[in-house]
Amino acid sequence: MENIEEQVAKVIEEAKEVEDSVSVHISKTISDEQTLRQRVLTLHSKIHSLRSSLYSLLPNNTTLVEKLDEDLERARCIVVDGDAATLLPAHAQGNFLRMFIGPINVRASRKDVQLKVKEEYNSYRDKTALLFLLFPALLLILRSWVWDGCLPAFPVQIYLAWLLFLYTGLALRENILRVNGSDIRPWWIYHHYCAMVMALVSLTCGIKGQPDCATKQRGVELFLQWAMMQGVAMLLQNRYQRQRLYTRIALGKAKRMDVVWGETAGVDGQLWLLCPMLFILQGFEAYVGILLLKTAFVGVVSEWQVIFCGVLLVLMAVGNFTNTVQTLMVKSRF
Amino acid sequence: MENIEEQVAKVIEEAKEVEDSVSVHISKTISDEQTLRQRVLTLHSKIHSLRSSLYSLLPNNTTLVEKLDEDLERARCIVVDGDAATLLPAHAQGNFLRMFIGPINVRASRKDVQLKVKEEYNSYRDKTALLFLLFPALLLILRSWVWDGCLPAFPVQIYLAWLLFLYTGLALRENILRVNGSDIRPWWIYHHYCAMVMALVSLTCGIKGQPDCATKQRGVELFLQWAMMQGVAMLLQNRYQRQRLYTRIALGKAKRMDVVWGETAGVDGQLWLLCPMLFILQGFEAYVGILLLKTAFVGVVSEWQVIFCGVLLVLMAVGNFTNTVQTLMVKSRF
Ligand SMILES: CC(C)(COP(=O)(O)OP(=O)(O)OC[C@H]1O[C@@H](n2cnc3c(N)ncnc32)[C@H](O)[C@@H]1OP(=O)(O)O)[C@@H](O)C(=O)NCCC(=O)NCCS
Ligand SMILES: CC(C)(COP(=O)(O)OP(=O)(O)OC[C@H]1O[C@@H](n2cnc3c(N)ncnc32)[C@H](O)[C@@H]1OP(=O)(O)O)[C@@H](O)C(=O)NCCC(=O)NCCS
Repeated sequence: MENIEEQVAKVIEEAKEVEDSVSVHISKTISDEQTLRQRVLTLHSKIHSLRSSLYSLLPNNTTLVEKLDEDLERARCIVVDGDAATLLPAHAQGNFLRMFIGPINVRASRKDVQLKVKEEYNSYRDKTALLFLLFPALLLILRSWVWDGCLPAFPVQIYLAWLLFLYTGLALRENILRVNGSDIRPWWIYHHYCAMVMALVSLTCGIKGQPDCATKQRGVELFLQWAMMQGVAMLLQNRYQRQRLYTRIALGKAKRMDVVWGETAGVDGQLWLLCPMLFILQGFEAYVGILLLKTAFVGVVSEWQVIFCGVLLVLMAVGNFTNTVQTLMVKSRF
Repeated sequence: MENIEEQVAKVIEEAKEVEDSVSVHISKTISDEQTLRQRVLTLHSKIHSLRSSLYSLLPNNTTLVEKLDEDLERARCIVVDGDAATLLPAHAQGNFLRMFIGPINVRASRKDVQLKVKEEYNSYRDKTALLFLLFPALLLILRSWVWDGCLPAFPVQIYLAWLLFLYTGLALRENILRVNGSDIRPWWIYHHYCAMVMALVSLTCGIKGQPDCATKQRGVELFLQWAMMQGVAMLLQNRYQRQRLYTRIALGKAKRMDVVWGETAGVDGQLWLLCPMLFILQGFEAYVGILLLKTAFVGVVSEWQVIFCGVLLVLMAVGNFTNTVQTLMVKSRF
């Protein structure tokens, strides 16, 4: 009996001790992190300021400037592509994330986890792209072979609901990537917000059937064709972006390990193959938008949803185009 | 010139050092955490086994057993409500979270952050509950005063889209709470999945207008009335659950600090006031469902969406009822 009472008393003591140890561990981790963060920040800005003053300090020695610039770039890579990067300030968690998941922190505390998140995003997009291709293809095939040229409402609605879910997931993931240090342009995220709204609006728009099905469903048909093209473009884009990520990981490792790295231009070359595809796609996107607007104004269908989707498609096409061009311009400057 | 070259060389050295320090810091944190986790787990299971063997070890000494049981409960509280709790195994991140936000870790590493997430969830629900009350009320008022007894489609669709967004957010947040150690019953989360599906399906269902608007919109009207009732119930439920959280935080603190805690039954008393309200609400939920089914089978409207929503409402009512009863039964056993 003595024995049990003693055991219980010991357990309470132990509980307090463990709780204390954990609290101490947590505060110590936080304060250590704070010190390290300060060091990383100071170093990061020092690299930056040294780099920008190189030319003014050595105006006549281009070879040396280039060598030193390369050295500093290596130092930057060590900081930006290593674990130290997790201590650099990141984009704040935006309102979209906050609305859906609240104020929980989604920043990974290790660089390899951040990279894994990015890889997972890429492979998610890969799976998605295949469905992007197959789903509308299936609908169009069934339409002409089984449904006699007239799409029934239900499968189209399933498709639209799937699109809504998908774009929401992509937008959430891209916001999370940004918090984890990705430089993704805000437009590509806004683009997914627009796509979400469009899927939602299309859902409220009853799919019209006979009579005169072909005319009424012309918009849907074009939309499905465009979606298929988008699937192909996404597959290519993914291929390019996955390789870019691997190159970056390898490059980061190489730079951190003082290895000389040869081929980096290989991936950027692909971009010049991808971009014409993207421009065609964007043109077709605008074309579908304008066609929707035309059907609305000629009076075949007169719902506000058609006008709304038409305007949105044109806006998205213009935004995609300008942002792609801007990306290319930034890249060609280096 | 020497000087700059030296500076650059120093910066590279520094970058390597900082990167090393950060990596070391991260691995050390992880291994320390592993050791602490082991201690917490061992202690946790020791408390559990001691507690369950108390009666068999001291069969004749009820007073002592009760005292020791209380002591062990205190030890358990220290572990479960303190920072040590963040090292206990939690529910795995489910598929729903994974589908939307990918494999990013959403578990907070400090207990006070976990509690803050819960508080934020409560205040989010509070804001939501008000809108839950006001939005349908506004629709019903405008319907009889402005719209001549016939709801136009657009505002109802906005309302449904808002519901869809809301339920998605709630479901995501509740999944995150579960990962952070909440004991929320899975049904309350499934309930929100059902509500998401219902909102989505209702969106695809065109809102019918004249002629014979009153009959066709009877289902929508009932749904809005039920939504208003739900708003009231949510407000009460929130009040109760917020107080419960504060009691728990205070209780946890008190137990950790060896303070004697008197009133804990005050909150549980509220439950007996809340539950009749909930039962009425659940009854009305089932009633709306059955009425929808009736309108569908009598043939006033014949869309599959009406039957689907009717069945779903009945299932949700039954699930809510059984889970509320089960919760009450578990509570009354203590
Ligand atoms: C033009 C394009 C190929 C350039 O890609 P890129 O070379 O990776 O561009 P950047 O160097 O500016 O990329 C910066 C970051 O944004 C990411 N990113 C770029 N475009 C993205 C996009 N469309 N979606 C998601 N992420 C994107 C990159 O992965 C990179 O991330 P990181 O910092 O984590 O490594 C790409 O933006 C693209 O495919 N855009 C066209 C999309 C389109 O118009 N689709 C048709 C309609 S759906
Ligand atoms: C019956 C009820 C009041 C019991 O609440 P409770 O006393 O907190 O129940 P429990 O003790 O089982 O709670 C365990 C955990 O689940 C949470 N929880 C319980 N019911 C919840 C609900 N409906 N939604 C979200 N979280 C809930 C609690 O906050 C608690 O979280 P914690 O572990 O982080 O502290 C509550 O479940 C309830 O309101 N249910 C009815 C809902 C309903 O039918 N609504 C009408 C239709 S919408």
